[in-house]
Amino acid sequence: MDTELTQQPTGGTASKTWSQRFESALHPAIARFNASILFDIELIEYDITGSQAHAKMLAHTGIISPAEGEQLITGLEQIRQEYRQGQFHPGIDAEDVHFAVERRLTEIVGDVGKKLHTARSRNDQVGTDTRLYLRDRIDQIRSQLREFQGVLLNLAERNVETLIPGYTHLQRAQPVSLAHHLLAYFEMLERDWQRLGEIQKRTNISPLGSGALAGTTFPIDRHFTAKELHFDDVYGNSLDGVSDRDFAIEFLCAASLIMVHLSRMSEEIILWASQEFSFVKLKDSCATGSSIMPQKKNPDVPELVRGKTGRVFGHLQALLVLMKGLPLAYNKDLQEDKEALFDSVKTVIACLEAMTILMREGLEFNQNRLGEAVAEDFSNATDVADYLAARGVPFREAYNLVGKVVKTSLAAGKLLKDLSMAEWKELHPAFEADIYDAIAPQRVVAARNSYGGTGFDQVRQAIQRAKSRIA
Amino acid sequence: MDTELTQQPTGGTASKTWSQRFESALHPAIARFNASILFDIELIEYDITGSQAHAKMLAHTGIISPAEGEQLITGLEQIRQEYRQGQFHPGIDAEDVHFAVERRLTEIVGDVGKKLHTARSRNDQVGTDTRLYLRDRIDQIRSQLREFQGVLLNLAERNVETLIPGYTHLQRAQPVSLAHHLLAYFEMLERDWQRLGEIQKRTNISPLGSGALAGTTFPIDRHFTAKELHFDDVYGNSLDGVSDRDFAIEFLCAASLIMVHLSRMSEEIILWASQEFSFVKLKDSCATGSSIMPQKKNPDVPELVRGKTGRVFGHLQALLVLMKGLPLAYNKDLQEDKEALFDSVKTVIACLEAMTILMREGLEFNQNRLGEAVAEDFSNATDVADYLAARGVPFREAYNLVGKVVKTSLAAGKLLKDLSMAEWKELHPAFEADIYDAIAPQRVVAARNSYGGTGFDQVRQAIQRAKSRIA
Amino acid sequence: MDTELTQQPTGGTASKTWSQRFESALHPAIARFNASILFDIELIEYDITGSQAHAKMLAHTGIISPAEGEQLITGLEQIRQEYRQGQFHPGIDAEDVHFAVERRLTEIVGDVGKKLHTARSRNDQVGTDTRLYLRDRIDQIRSQLREFQGVLLNLAERNVETLIPGYTHLQRAQPVSLAHHLLAYFEMLERDWQRLGEIQKRTNISPLGSGALAGTTFPIDRHFTAKELHFDDVYGNSLDGVSDRDFAIEFLCAASLIMVHLSRMSEEIILWASQEFSFVKLKDSCATGSSIMPQKKNPDVPELVRGKTGRVFGHLQALLVLMKGLPLAYNKDLQEDKEALFDSVKTVIACLEAMTILMREGLEFNQNRLGEAVAEDFSNATDVADYLAARGVPFREAYNLVGKVVKTSLAAGKLLKDLSMAEWKELHPAFEADIYDAIAPQRVVAARNSYGGTGFDQVRQAIQRAKSRIA
Amino acid sequence: MDTELTQQPTGGTASKTWSQRFESALHPAIARFNASILFDIELIEYDITGSQAHAKMLAHTGIISPAEGEQLITGLEQIRQEYRQGQFHPGIDAEDVHFAVERRLTEIVGDVGKKLHTARSRNDQVGTDTRLYLRDRIDQIRSQLREFQGVLLNLAERNVETLIPGYTHLQRAQPVSLAHHLLAYFEMLERDWQRLGEIQKRTNISPLGSGALAGTTFPIDRHFTAKELHFDDVYGNSLDGVSDRDFAIEFLCAASLIMVHLSRMSEEIILWASQEFSFVKLKDSCATGSSIMPQKKNPDVPELVRGKTGRVFGHLQALLVLMKGLPLAYNKDLQEDKEALFDSVKTVIACLEAMTILMREGLEFNQNRLGEAVAEDFSNATDVADYLAARGVPFREAYNLVGKVVKTSLAAGKLLKDLSMAEWKELHPAFEADIYDAIAPQRVVAARNSYGGTGFDQVRQAIQRAKSRIA
Repeated sequence: MDTELTQQPTGGTASKTWSQRFESALHPAIARFNASILFDIELIEYDITGSQAHAKMLAHTGIISPAEGEQLITGLEQIRQEYRQGQFHPGIDAEDVHFAVERRLTEIVGDVGKKLHTARSRNDQVGTDTRLYLRDRIDQIRSQLREFQGVLLNLAERNVETLIPGYTHLQRAQPVSLAHHLLAYFEMLERDWQRLGEIQKRTNISPLGSGALAGTTFPIDRHFTAKELHFDDVYGNSLDGVSDRDFAIEFLCAASLIMVHLSRMSEEIILWASQEFSFVKLKDSCATGSSIMPQKKNPDVPELVRGKTGRVFGHLQALLVLMKGLPLAYNKDLQEDKEALFDSVKTVIACLEAMTILMREGLEFNQNRLGEAVAEDFSNATDVADYLAARGVPFREAYNLVGKVVKTSLAAGKLLKDLSMAEWKELHPAFEADIYDAIAPQRVVAARNSYGGTGFDQVRQAIQRAKSRIA
Repeated sequence: MDTELTQQPTGGTASKTWSQRFESALHPAIARFNASILFDIELIEYDITGSQAHAKMLAHTGIISPAEGEQLITGLEQIRQEYRQGQFHPGIDAEDVHFAVERRLTEIVGDVGKKLHTARSRNDQVGTDTRLYLRDRIDQIRSQLREFQGVLLNLAERNVETLIPGYTHLQRAQPVSLAHHLLAYFEMLERDWQRLGEIQKRTNISPLGSGALAGTTFPIDRHFTAKELHFDDVYGNSLDGVSDRDFAIEFLCAASLIMVHLSRMSEEIILWASQEFSFVKLKDSCATGSSIMPQKKNPDVPELVRGKTGRVFGHLQALLVLMKGLPLAYNKDLQEDKEALFDSVKTVIACLEAMTILMREGLEFNQNRLGEAVAEDFSNATDVADYLAARGVPFREAYNLVGKVVKTSLAAGKLLKDLSMAEWKELHPAFEADIYDAIAPQRVVAARNSYGGTGFDQVRQAIQRAKSRIA
Repeated sequence: MDTELTQQPTGGTASKTWSQRFESALHPAIARFNASILFDIELIEYDITGSQAHAKMLAHTGIISPAEGEQLITGLEQIRQEYRQGQFHPGIDAEDVHFAVERRLTEIVGDVGKKLHTARSRNDQVGTDTRLYLRDRIDQIRSQLREFQGVLLNLAERNVETLIPGYTHLQRAQPVSLAHHLLAYFEMLERDWQRLGEIQKRTNISPLGSGALAGTTFPIDRHFTAKELHFDDVYGNSLDGVSDRDFAIEFLCAASLIMVHLSRMSEEIILWASQEFSFVKLKDSCATGSSIMPQKKNPDVPELVRGKTGRVFGHLQALLVLMKGLPLAYNKDLQEDKEALFDSVKTVIACLEAMTILMREGLEFNQNRLGEAVAEDFSNATDVADYLAARGVPFREAYNLVGKVVKTSLAAGKLLKDLSMAEWKELHPAFEADIYDAIAPQRVVAARNSYGGTGFDQVRQAIQRAKSRIA
Repeated sequence: MDTELTQQPTGGTASKTWSQRFESALHPAIARFNASILFDIELIEYDITGSQAHAKMLAHTGIISPAEGEQLITGLEQIRQEYRQGQFHPGIDAEDVHFAVERRLTEIVGDVGKKLHTARSRNDQVGTDTRLYLRDRIDQIRSQLREFQGVLLNLAERNVETLIPGYTHLQRAQPVSLAHHLLAYFEMLERDWQRLGEIQKRTNISPLGSGALAGTTFPIDRHFTAKELHFDDVYGNSLDGVSDRDFAIEFLCAASLIMVHLSRMSEEIILWASQEFSFVKLKDSCATGSSIMPQKKNPDVPELVRGKTGRVFGHLQALLVLMKGLPLAYNKDLQEDKEALFDSVKTVIACLEAMTILMREGLEFNQNRLGEAVAEDFSNATDVADYLAARGVPFREAYNLVGKVVKTSLAAGKLLKDLSMAEWKELHPAFEADIYDAIAPQRVVAARNSYGGTGFDQVRQAIQRAKSRIA
């Protein structure tokens, strides 16, 4: 339970840390309702690490003796080992991970364990743990983003001159390099990576030493613990320190944007894997079948990723709602930040992992089909207009002319490349034999050579830039 | 995994239900990503019940023999018992609860187990399970609502003539009967109860027999299974049957409204328990202390309820996002509906339970303080205006006059009841000695006797209406 | 401004309805911030109608004289006419529509106008107006739903035997009747229609007479005004009456579900209009072009509808957040319910109108392409398994066999219909010449004749049911 | 309409920029549905500025002549002047602001106006306009944040030694300096300011020159226009350039956090202004009254701010939903980003303005009441425990002892300061006469002198740090 709370006295046993102000025990259903141990156990190693730094500081400042500090640190380390070996199983009566650790510590080291909580409150403690947790997870997600970018980049390098229809409004617009298309996602992930870096900086601030809300009367050294725990800075205001959850909300926003990007890519893969598009073939290792339809091969991974997108949006919303209108400083509502945060972290990590596998080894592009696709439509119509414009015909006049050609050709069941030279000449005398070359897909793509465009030279330069960024 | 999916062939063992179209096995990380068994185990008893009805229908229509039907039903019942006794532990390789049950069934009854899935798909199966699950939970929540309403009604009956300040803009407006205040929540819960009843009707429609998406070629009897499972009706369109999640979203909306009501009540209790208000005292059984501040007694329950509100809103949002823009019919995204639904159900049930305990035995109203509160402010100002209006002074003139009195009195540190008869007379000659009576809190409340108002007669009638409704 | 508020005194002019308790004027920026007249003018006719009923009741109960009542009603009617003729232009200083009307009324009828507000507060007044507004809009939306259902039904009737691929996971699963596909949307809209009916009942409850929060001391008749305004009932608790916004949230949930359904249909139309699917052709009247790509024809309508979906979800979320944790009774926050509600109403109405036009006259199905589509894939694979099962081969064995056939055929570039009789016989001796007939698309669809399935007989029955429902 | 779209041919007039591929006109209702001019007029000055830079670049690169470039720039400037003077009123037929400007330009400068759109698409154009708009608004909001921080800092400086109860769980915990409390908000706003700065950097990237999706064949100079428009960089991928809306979503997240902070402050002010707290008095210039309750003075500003919080959350959600699952590149759905963005910008600006006025001149702290408040409770209990701990009593023992004292005192209706020396001694012999001093509120606050704590020295240092930050 991420609060200043500790357990109430129960039955005949002497209460240890609970106020004597209370006479009767907590209603069992209420105790269950309040307990957070089932989910905040996720924080246990961060809690131990944070407590070790706190103990070291208490000794360093003379609040406890060096020997006591050593005892606490060693005892805490033992709990870490017990946990890692699956030997630490706090019951629901432990209420929260912080109390579970403190109680076990006292079992191990005896009464000195009761000194650990000196000059500290659950409020600053849980804030510290959560930030340490998220700092690490951001590292992990940023690594995953880099790995995924590498996969995309690798695929792009092999497909600079592979063409794919480019769409607006899901209507074929202009053909593009497949590499160019893949690099669009590289760019999105690059922003995700950058954004998480900035959020990590704002996450990596220590609230430890803020006390319950107002600081403490003990001569603590907040910069000492901050340095021990590799925080970049300490909160400058104790009320803010115990009640700030901006960092978690910012993270959930960044996580939502990652999901937006993954869901867009997922949507495209689902489309591409449809029989109608047939741009990619899913490999057996990344597809599933049906219990009753023997022919089915389903793109479960991108569908699930798309489906999980709302989940992360929902968590973002939950945290915003949680914080809205809360007076200072700590309120119990804040305990509810954990599950939304943890689940979002896990969802993003799982989706990035699955999509990376899918793009690395789970699908293959159908080169034949792509080759046909860019040759079978009117997505070179702009280039006919450009052809005329380059030969002195005002662009809007050229554009109108081509509009008519498209209409006539559609009616006749022809593509532009099927028009005879006589037909071209009839349309406009400026057309010469090189019009056929000018509207060939490969040429059409190569010609869009403005900076950031799909022209092959541009794409190769973009690949170089991308490489140096993730190097 | 709530889809048409079954497992892929693995290694050297012969695949049983998986298409021979696949050559290689699913990537382990992808298998993990796809699996739903860790959460859809929640549905196991509904899955068994649904399968029993399906088996009975298969036998009834002659698709399988009566003996086969009996074997399937008995085998399924055995799994139910194993589960209840904690002896059923499907591994992650089971992928989803449906396959886990089917696999175990075949272990128990042999090859006839493979006939269970005849004329059925995972798509209609999971839809059936989910509806059965939710139908039951709605029953449970409606019972809880009724219980909670009873607690409020009981409290109201004992407090018809207990006065409490009534607020608008959190400024004291007019005093009201405490019973009247509590009954406002009774009304909100009544709408919740009614709404859930309507949603339950739309939930209680059977999709079973919709097949994967298009129905089935087998001569099934959908109305037979519907009757067996106590559904009110069957889906009239198979595509809709396997892809509709309206009922889940509707439920999440109703759940969000329940949380809105509980959060409003929570906010009030938190306020009332503050030292500033001191309208209620929390009992030890429903409050918690602090690890470092010996005097603290915190209203964790209403704070947590308030905090959990955003959680349910988030799940509602998640499901809406999930459904947005999905083409027909079943898509794997739909697997993501479960956790949002399950967690919302649990959250609402837990919050209703905790709030019921809190209101029944966790707090006591501070009658002295309430008595003082309604006597110490200007919330009887409207009644002075009414007094004059009743004596022929135009209301707006009266209103303006009272505004001035309030200003003067505030400056003088007096309340209206502190004005001398001379002062009243000076203000307006229409004032007589009965003004003191007219502005006494008890009288002020009693006088608002319009239908639905806070007048004691009205409140008593409202209590009678409420009683007959939940009887 | 939907509150109990009226204007403050300004400068040298005598304040009319504002408390004398205030000494100085409102800061102009704050006045602007508080004003709602720019958007709540939308309610003006409902405000007038509500006030007329209130005036009639005041006269009926003798609180004002019959002549006064008549004057008020006539004066209000004049304002309505002025508004309809574009002659009523309250400035920002009017603050809210309620005050704007009251002020104008007093200009028209003189001092008796000041009696209109007797026994009423802005809090119950604005609640009344909003419910009247929403009740009407629900009528309008339900009519639109019926009209749209009619369009779909009409299209379905003409396409019972038109086949279209049916999808799960956007992979072709089994072919279906186009009518069956369209009727899936009919069903969704039917639920929308039903749901709105229930919500309308909960909306159509009168809060008028709840006063500011506690009822009133005047001998009003709430059932009289309720009857005048065609409300079904009156709120039984005044605190609830002025602070309940459940009805608005419920409506926004129903509106969100309508948008879910429209967005799903939109997604499909966008897919169908793509060159890859080419199932429909957009007509010029419902498509748009590009300024630089002469060949483009874009499905703007379904894209915009899909895009507007989040807008309504956002408004739902906004209102839930608004209500969360508000203490009783009226709080100024509630003023923020209007714009979310109004914009959602307009969005749903506009989207229904646009989609109805699109489906009625904006697209045509490409029958040739659909005919080819259902013949060119393996979506008849299940039927081969069924064929064998019907001839005594256990289903799972049949299923596995067909899986192999699909794999072999894919490798050979063949469809099932392309297999020679010798090949069939080699696969399994049970195959006879009638296998070709059994896997023909038309037959495959017809055979799924379970209730609610895509079999033509079923679809025709479904059409009859649908017709009688909207008759 | 923020797309590649232009108008369709209408009736007898010659179409200017619309494809000849279309034969019939857009349905009027569909045209209305598609039009965006009613809201994107907000972008007009940015559209003009962007077009001027584009024209300058076209001339610079020789795509048009210098004279043509000059004509275009001058003509565009004329439109800006017409707009500023209220003389530019494009009708709904203009569809979007981009076309409205282009059409007017051609009226002014003749056929050369048709050259403006060379090497540009609506897709990159609208992206450019939106980024320019948001960049400016971020500047404005950051200035407002700084101004508001200044107001808080000023108030803090005057209240370093004013004490106010500090709360956790809305229960009095430990008294704090009012300055310390105000500075907590300063810190939140500081993060808002910093965050917006980072987002502005990612917003300030030019998509101009990305064309419809693939770049352009014209020899444009994207860095030239970027420099002209003071962009920091250009998009490196054209597909990403036209379809990225991350910057808008990031802004909405930052806006949501600003609203979280303002809503927390609002909640506190509403509490403080209640009769129960009475910590502040609202001035007449920032409060409103009631039409029927003469004594009321309502905190409308913080209530409205709190109420508007959900509005911004809703817009954030709307944009996330909008983007989810959209395939590349531009889709018409993106048109829906504008209203959510514009309304959020306006809401944040209005709320910051109102709250700044409120804190600067709208309320005054009730020093007497605050002085009483910190003296009348047990929020000095921790300090008694600390007192003993400092005299060698183990903290937990001390803590338990104090718990008992609190219980006894509560029962006796006494505060800690009311205990006689004899009573102290009886509790524990370590108590001396200086205990009275140790638990005096002023001393209690001063003693929490850890870094970032509420001790007066700390607060003064925090004020200095704050000053230098906003200097």
